[in-house]
Amino acid sequence: MVAIGDVRVGENRVVIMAGPCTVESREQVESAAAAVHKAGVKIMRGGAFKPRTSPHSFQGMGEDGLKLLHHAASQRGMYVVSEVMDHTQIPMFLEYADILQVGARNMQNFNLLKELGKIRKPVLLKRGMSATIEELLLAAEYIMTGGNHQVILCERGIRTFESATRNTLDLSAIPVVKKLSHLPIVVDPSHGTGRRDKVPPMARAAVAAGADGVLIEVHPDPDKALCDGAQSLLPEQFECLMKELQLIASAVGRTL
Amino acid sequence: MVAIGDVRVGENRVVIMAGPCTVESREQVESAAAAVHKAGVKIMRGGAFKPRTSPHSFQGMGEDGLKLLHHAASQRGMYVVSEVMDHTQIPMFLEYADILQVGARNMQNFNLLKELGKIRKPVLLKRGMSATIEELLLAAEYIMTGGNHQVILCERGIRTFESATRNTLDLSAIPVVKKLSHLPIVVDPSHGTGRRDKVPPMARAAVAAGADGVLIEVHPDPDKALCDGAQSLLPEQFECLMKELQLIASAVGRTL
Amino acid sequence: MVAIGDVRVGENRVVIMAGPCTVESREQVESAAAAVHKAGVKIMRGGAFKPRTSPHSFQGMGEDGLKLLHHAASQRGMYVVSEVMDHTQIPMFLEYADILQVGARNMQNFNLLKELGKIRKPVLLKRGMSATIEELLLAAEYIMTGGNHQVILCERGIRTFESATRNTLDLSAIPVVKKLSHLPIVVDPSHGTGRRDKVPPMARAAVAAGADGVLIEVHPDPDKALCDGAQSLLPEQFECLMKELQLIASAVGRTL
Amino acid sequence: MVAIGDVRVGENRVVIMAGPCTVESREQVESAAAAVHKAGVKIMRGGAFKPRTSPHSFQGMGEDGLKLLHHAASQRGMYVVSEVMDHTQIPMFLEYADILQVGARNMQNFNLLKELGKIRKPVLLKRGMSATIEELLLAAEYIMTGGNHQVILCERGIRTFESATRNTLDLSAIPVVKKLSHLPIVVDPSHGTGRRDKVPPMARAAVAAGADGVLIEVHPDPDKALCDGAQSLLPEQFECLMKELQLIASAVGRTL
Repeated sequence: MVAIGDVRVGENRVVIMAGPCTVESREQVESAAAAVHKAGVKIMRGGAFKPRTSPHSFQGMGEDGLKLLHHAASQRGMYVVSEVMDHTQIPMFLEYADILQVGARNMQNFNLLKELGKIRKPVLLKRGMSATIEELLLAAEYIMTGGNHQVILCERGIRTFESATRNTLDLSAIPVVKKLSHLPIVVDPSHGTGRRDKVPPMARAAVAAGADGVLIEVHPDPDKALCDGAQSLLPEQFECLMKELQLIASAVGRTL
Repeated sequence: MVAIGDVRVGENRVVIMAGPCTVESREQVESAAAAVHKAGVKIMRGGAFKPRTSPHSFQGMGEDGLKLLHHAASQRGMYVVSEVMDHTQIPMFLEYADILQVGARNMQNFNLLKELGKIRKPVLLKRGMSATIEELLLAAEYIMTGGNHQVILCERGIRTFESATRNTLDLSAIPVVKKLSHLPIVVDPSHGTGRRDKVPPMARAAVAAGADGVLIEVHPDPDKALCDGAQSLLPEQFECLMKELQLIASAVGRTL
Repeated sequence: MVAIGDVRVGENRVVIMAGPCTVESREQVESAAAAVHKAGVKIMRGGAFKPRTSPHSFQGMGEDGLKLLHHAASQRGMYVVSEVMDHTQIPMFLEYADILQVGARNMQNFNLLKELGKIRKPVLLKRGMSATIEELLLAAEYIMTGGNHQVILCERGIRTFESATRNTLDLSAIPVVKKLSHLPIVVDPSHGTGRRDKVPPMARAAVAAGADGVLIEVHPDPDKALCDGAQSLLPEQFECLMKELQLIASAVGRTL
Repeated sequence: MVAIGDVRVGENRVVIMAGPCTVESREQVESAAAAVHKAGVKIMRGGAFKPRTSPHSFQGMGEDGLKLLHHAASQRGMYVVSEVMDHTQIPMFLEYADILQVGARNMQNFNLLKELGKIRKPVLLKRGMSATIEELLLAAEYIMTGGNHQVILCERGIRTFESATRNTLDLSAIPVVKKLSHLPIVVDPSHGTGRRDKVPPMARAAVAAGADGVLIEVHPDPDKALCDGAQSLLPEQFECLMKELQLIASAVGRTL
């Protein structure tokens, strides 16, 4: 179990983390915060530093974005999860984030993992695009060896030959992890599928398979998103999904 | 919608197909039939001709196995689904099977597909281990072009680098197929994961994601199974799973 | 070693098999035969029955195509290799082909493999798109168990996430097979890469890595090809490649 | 073309970079340096900081190892290539290394890439295990956008389902890169195959396909290696390979 304030990941309650892929402006992040808060979310996600395949794509608002995110979330009593790109950024993240996220491309950035082992805040560790589940668990071991046991694993899709979805979401990682480790595991169907209409069914499937939480991208105006708009839910769609997840959680003996 | 007698695949009711991987003996198939029938199953699965990677592995009981399966199922009012390996076997299968299954290795055996287009019985078409969803739909097109529109698609796991499971069950194929095609899609978590304890969570996830049915391997004595024992449920486990699936089906507005 | 008349596959001489992807007309096949014969080829390839992903694509000329191919090749003292789709076609192929090819999609069509075990003509067995090398060797075992030991293995690319090439040509299969088996192995860089300009470098690489032969698609007018034109060499390019392969063969102590 | 002193990567001469996977001791690195120098090598490789899957594996000698490597190489007039794990290590590497290597796991460590764009020393950029060729070129773009154009690309195998080799060496990346970019590309068959006996055939194949260089692991006593011993050549095997590569280089109109 990993505790973020009064929120516990890995216990009976399924934890939803939601928000925009990227912080783009004060208006956008406030509007997204209001929407996910209204739907009952306690942990808000949002990227300030963005690992983009091309150097010519939008790279994120940086520290300013992190501050906007922190303000929008904390004002509403929500906690913040955001991606740290590098071990030199850890002090900055300790100030503004409640969970430090390690992205898929950094799952084996061992210097970053070692430094995260020295802090005492929760880490959300995303599975690499071509990482086996064993390698994911060994990456978590890098953090825990340093004394930080607050690690949340995250399945976010692996790279396969299939091109109908952005990645292939490997939900069997949930029961595999549950058998091998005490660590909680959450699922990111937004990056896992890359397509808005695939997010609700895969989020439901994740909860049905035993996930301890789900990460959902929500954007007040996805068509104008600077990053990953195609996979972001509209606020109304997200509210509807929350109700569906409630029913599934209850069917497997959990709450939301 | 595909109809097998009074069973309809692709409507509100989620259809469970269950039985042993392979027909091994009269006792085994009768015992398995009794178990799945007791749990409420209407379609019994079982292999008589087995496509095995090695020529030195058990190849199935052949026509005798098919007869035993047909007898055990029909006696209890259940229908039979079984794998046809070759177009020359079609007449034999028309006599003993209600659904003709095309295995993953034969998904692009185009001569078999073309001949199945000429019959008027349902076909269960399994996705090839390295087939894209588009290729699965085009394989179905081979059958439908011949005039046989009773095709049920089946996701059964694709081949990836991950080795913790036998294959990677691609549940996102469900919403992808639902958007592109009118054909029903069922999921085989037994072959998809290859591990008994992974079958129930992935079966639940399949129903939560919108699958029209689930194929489950059930064996009265899995440790003595001649084929795929490690992925077969015990009758008690299967009964328990049926109750879980009922709850999930109901959570997504369907019946079982 | 596998003998086709006076041609030996698996001895010092590297064997080139070349010709069009598909037989399209008498003119096309005669022109292609003249071109590859002029370049020194002894085994001509060409498809009469084509396994196409879509039922709406050109399916090949069938038996007529096989006859045209046989005529064009034998007239010039060349042997024929062509793909058999189904065990019921074996008698027809025994009449017109010198090597019966099993395509990638049929590598685990076990009924076809078993029947090929009963004949006494060479079989060219292509690796399936998602088959491991071990599975390829076990597929060959199906043929050899029947008493037919004249099996030539063929690496033709496996399916991966990379999309710059049609498949990923796995040349390491050559030393792996050489260590585990006595069977000769040839490489098909045309299907392996799917791009004309990638064929010569990968053909050279195959010979450098120890391949016993290379299959090359050559078409007199690739832009008008009914199938796979983008990966076919022009006759002039093929002649040039033959000279390059001669140099590489000589550098590894072999002849062409 | 990238120049390291008088060595030019990307011109007619094929460049060999060789040495142990990891620096383990003064004796080992001196012995390895003597061996590769004797065989004609001008660029010595060796790891001081090792990215290991498990935190419980040997992590390298660190800065001490880098000094030993620098001493062993420079004493013999050789240049050094070694892996930098993190942007904070760049100043240290500028002192001891002539080429800064970015490992496969760091190919999309964008902060590292951006900082490498600010220096004026050559960078060897390894393709990520699940990176497309396009993503490799975009990672190079991160470095070049900063003004550092001395980038050497390196194909080192991608992750696939095949388990007979450690990775699947994708030699078709060579002609693909040659068509899309002016950057030189070298190949690492040691990591690409993970098996000593597969290294020579794949090194020959790389040169035959047009690689501008080859990285080879050589260890004076591979069975006692602390890391990757199974893929390291003995000095005698390496000398023999150098002669083979000379013949292949000459067959494709290049020198060694």
